[in-house]
This record gives sequence, C-alpha cells and structure tokens, in this order.
Amino acid sequence: MDIIKVKANSRTAAVAGAIAGVVREHRHAEIQAIGAGAVNQAIKALVLAKGYLAEDNIIVVAVPEFVDVEIEGKVRTAIKLNVEIR
Amino acid sequence: MDIIKVKANSRTAAVAGAIAGVVREHRHAEIQAIGAGAVNQAIKALVLAKGYLAEDNIIVVAVPEFVDVEIEGKVRTAIKLNVEIR
Repeated sequence: MDIIKVKANSRTAAVAGAIAGVVREHRHAEIQAIGAGAVNQAIKALVLAKGYLAEDNIIVVAVPEFVDVEIEGKVRTAIKLNVEIR
Repeated sequence: MDIIKVKANSRTAAVAGAIAGVVREHRHAEIQAIGAGAVNQAIKALVLAKGYLAEDNIIVVAVPEFVDVEIEGKVRTAIKLNVEIR
C-alpha cells in the first residue's frame, strides 16, 4: 500500500478521493505531510474523505504520529496520519 | 467541557497538556483550529498528548470535521478535532 503524500498545494478533493479509494481497498490508509500547509491540506482532505466513506457506512478515525523522513539528504519530521476504520 | 482553541503561535507542549488533562477527566476532548499554522500546531499537540495518555494505557483517536465559527462578525471555517478514546 502506498503512502499518500500531501503537499501544501495538493488539491483537497483529489487527495480525499485517494484516501477514500485506499481505505475502501485496504481498510486502512497512511497520509504523510511535511509543514503546516501540507498538514492543513491533509486534514481538510481527510474531512472530505470521511464524508465520502460515511456514505458507504465506513466510519474512519485518524491516529497521528511523527515520522522522520529523508528528503534530498536531509532528515525532516513529517506528520503521518494513520486512517483506520472504527 | 471547554473546547481547546489552538492558534498558530500556541505552544505544542501546553496544548498537549491541556488535551491530555481534558481527555483524562472527560474521556473526550474537542480541539479547534483556524488556518494552516493553527491546524499544524493542533496536530503536533495531539501527537504529544497521545504519547502522554498512552503512558496510562489510554489510546486516543481523532475524528476531524469542519465547523463554522463567527469571529468578529465574520464566519470562518475551523477544523475541529474530536479526540476520543479507542
């Protein structure tokens, strides 16, 4: 399962569709965002995805955690949102 | 139960302590943030609070939603994070 990587300029509707699709297939999704703009987009997309999935009676919750990721040789702290079915 | 309102310049450790305290007392907390910086601080604080609570075997999940709030006569869309015990 691929991690859904969100950027500050990601479109929320597109990310939301990806989250909903991954949750439908895998019953779980992982979203990764680095920086305030990206985290904000990720949360907004998650709210939309939650609505899409609720139409199919799939109720999701999020468990956030910090993860260190290496980008161009530098270690940065990302927020990972683990999306799980309640 | 008061809503925990987070700003972009809120200290994550202080917010995390507030979240953990409210969850311990009420088994539930509500966090509200407006804007990318505030949402990012709220999520970071939630990760910290999750760690504090896990020491007491309290495992929390978050359910995000949009809420409209009126600030100085203008309606703005906030992110509300409902923190629940799994």
